[in-house]
Amino acid sequence: MSDSLDAAPGRRQVRAPQVLKGFRDFLPERMILRQRVIAILRETYERHGFEPIETPALEYYETLAGKYGEDEKLIYHFPDHGGREIGMRYDLTVPLARFVAVHRNELTFPFKRYHIAPVWRADRPQRGRYREFWQCDADIVGTRSMLADADVISIVIEALSAINIPNFVVHINHRKLLESLAIYAGVQADRAGSVYRAIDKLAKIGEAGVAQELVAAGVETATAARVIELVSTSGSPDVVIGRIAERLEGIAPAREALDDITSLFEFLAALGAPAEHYTLDLALARGLAYYTGPVFEAIVDEPKMGSLVGAGRYDGLVGMFSSHDIPATGMSVGLERIIDVVEELRLLDVRTTISEALVTIFPDDGSASTHEALRLVAELRRAGVRAEATLEEGRDLGRQFRYAVRRGVPFALVIGPDEVQRGVVAVKDLQNELQVDVPRATVAAYLRERVRAQR
Amino acid sequence: MSDSLDAAPGRRQVRAPQVLKGFRDFLPERMILRQRVIAILRETYERHGFEPIETPALEYYETLAGKYGEDEKLIYHFPDHGGREIGMRYDLTVPLARFVAVHRNELTFPFKRYHIAPVWRADRPQRGRYREFWQCDADIVGTRSMLADADVISIVIEALSAINIPNFVVHINHRKLLESLAIYAGVQADRAGSVYRAIDKLAKIGEAGVAQELVAAGVETATAARVIELVSTSGSPDVVIGRIAERLEGIAPAREALDDITSLFEFLAALGAPAEHYTLDLALARGLAYYTGPVFEAIVDEPKMGSLVGAGRYDGLVGMFSSHDIPATGMSVGLERIIDVVEELRLLDVRTTISEALVTIFPDDGSASTHEALRLVAELRRAGVRAEATLEEGRDLGRQFRYAVRRGVPFALVIGPDEVQRGVVAVKDLQNELQVDVPRATVAAYLRERVRAQR
Repeated sequence: MSDSLDAAPGRRQVRAPQVLKGFRDFLPERMILRQRVIAILRETYERHGFEPIETPALEYYETLAGKYGEDEKLIYHFPDHGGREIGMRYDLTVPLARFVAVHRNELTFPFKRYHIAPVWRADRPQRGRYREFWQCDADIVGTRSMLADADVISIVIEALSAINIPNFVVHINHRKLLESLAIYAGVQADRAGSVYRAIDKLAKIGEAGVAQELVAAGVETATAARVIELVSTSGSPDVVIGRIAERLEGIAPAREALDDITSLFEFLAALGAPAEHYTLDLALARGLAYYTGPVFEAIVDEPKMGSLVGAGRYDGLVGMFSSHDIPATGMSVGLERIIDVVEELRLLDVRTTISEALVTIFPDDGSASTHEALRLVAELRRAGVRAEATLEEGRDLGRQFRYAVRRGVPFALVIGPDEVQRGVVAVKDLQNELQVDVPRATVAAYLRERVRAQR
Repeated sequence: MSDSLDAAPGRRQVRAPQVLKGFRDFLPERMILRQRVIAILRETYERHGFEPIETPALEYYETLAGKYGEDEKLIYHFPDHGGREIGMRYDLTVPLARFVAVHRNELTFPFKRYHIAPVWRADRPQRGRYREFWQCDADIVGTRSMLADADVISIVIEALSAINIPNFVVHINHRKLLESLAIYAGVQADRAGSVYRAIDKLAKIGEAGVAQELVAAGVETATAARVIELVSTSGSPDVVIGRIAERLEGIAPAREALDDITSLFEFLAALGAPAEHYTLDLALARGLAYYTGPVFEAIVDEPKMGSLVGAGRYDGLVGMFSSHDIPATGMSVGLERIIDVVEELRLLDVRTTISEALVTIFPDDGSASTHEALRLVAELRRAGVRAEATLEEGRDLGRQFRYAVRRGVPFALVIGPDEVQRGVVAVKDLQNELQVDVPRATVAAYLRERVRAQR
């Protein structure tokens, strides 16, 4: 609040205020779930030695402009009070590039950072797409080694496993394999994009559809068939890599890509990444504008969830504010999609309320019962129980229990004159309505055990 | 990043980009400390049964306008892509009021929420004042009981104690006591503000200075002396309350305020709040625009830190978007001030890096050593150690150790051909240069114990 003594008190504005379209409030129940998912991601990133950073929500517009292609129009920007054009954070990657340029002398490379923060895009809101949403990025800056890419992929696998996402597979491809495919298809570099786009639709429109699009892009019918046969190759990575190497022999970028991919799969195996969670997929294109090496995407087909995590190597991007290229690889978790999936499939057993115990205030006519309740609640808190006292005196007990039940608080405690005299506290388990008397001296320890079991 | 296949790759912009004035990047070392302090606040709020919520960074400007008096000019606002005037979150209290109005049918009252988030103000940047800073608010909405105010004050005391803030005292006053003082001084209600402002300066300008200001505000010299004598009363709460009751007898708001204050101090005592951490201070005014009941502020005089937490009851504010008043009380922790103090006085023993162990890659000519290192790093992670492998093959060991030292990683591990043959891992403690061989089979358990002791 304003600390000015003279500020006008808020005028009443009875017309119901609204939340902006594409923006959301989070009530406690959903917020607790979000915090849990974020905590799992953070733990996973930290277990891999990634360090947290934070950048401002606002940047010079110049820093953001020219970085997002056509999507640039979705940046919220405006002149600030000093007339500087400023823009709201649109993703966490351009700020990372700016951060590395500003602080390069304070950082030790390879620099592994994670950044979990909201970003803003003036996009058309629709189911699952918001104007304010959180990204959870982990990137490694300053090394070209496939050890870094393997680290990133293993994080994706560990994080999604920890969130209990079922049947996910990290599809892995390489930018230069796609380039090689375009060469193999006899398409000029400047038209290669249409080949990638066609191939990327394989799962969506099938082989016949892709063939049609390839031919429309100028690929000969027989070549189109060979391209499709190649990208559809399945089997163990060794077999697939061997087949590709054979077909793309003599195409320079393919050699480089296959060396990378071979190392990557070796490293993933050494890291113990479960084989069912990653695969080589020559049809994966992703947004290729920035990518220079391996690209990957975590996909769940059953139940259909689409892409949960996107990632890849982008050796030209982080150096955009510096005088030379700085290699980098990393991943971005779209928190909202993950949360939607977790909620829909109830993947995490998360409580709906933080509070674990309500200490009722016995509605007698003196303040002694209030003081007893407050002493008890303080003791429970010191014992590590998330406890609260009823915040009104004189309410009848039934109403206090109902308050706890509506909030989802699992236990209600009564310490009235009768309990005080008997040296006990009545502990009511509100989930099953069972009530037990617990000695006053041990009730904090008793309740700590009960709630720990439920956390 | 943009997922568009056609987006233009980022153009290189070699001119060094800047961070906007009043905004900050946080490098890992500071970010780890911030996360620790936020975690302590969150734990404290949750231990008291407060539930987390989140509101958007952007609101209709109309929601924010007319709520902050003169400071309204500091709100960042602009027309969005649809021509709606929107503003950036300026504090967490107006969004709470809007949240309660929108969701009142989904909430159970008293509603206890905490909200930890950045806010933005186009203020003149200066030491300790930023344009983007975090607020950590805890409020209770829907009860007039002093039990709620006592809960909030006890949180302040617990949180500051947990952060190791030395010698802090929560100064407590009551809006209606100040009103009574103005009546006692014979000043009309519409000029009462000048009396509050004068009294509030007692610690700064002393009794003579306050007397001068009071007289300038139209208070008679003799009355000014009596006012000053009254607000300077010190001693135990009982004594002070008794003295005030005597002097302000017959002034209606004083009776009400003293009832509140008496209950509040009783409740604080029952909650076990240490008496040295709170006091009645009739000279505390705070920004009174919104406050209707008790006001409080956590102050550290030695070393001089000023006010760390501001709080109070504001029964008229949360209902501003609703058709009736909704009582509320709460507190706002200014994270930046707390962090400054924690850093200056080194109050928390926080590590400077997340990563706990670097597994070096032995620079031999084969890939066997790389695979050994990766298997080891995966095992350490599974054991709960925050571990990473060197992200480049072929670096000499000295360079790998130096990388770990520069980063502040406490342990480096070597598993070269010699170690493999002997069935051990060499564990080097980089803080004291001591190196021990630990059996390969037990190294994960060994290291887990070592790093747990350091966390």
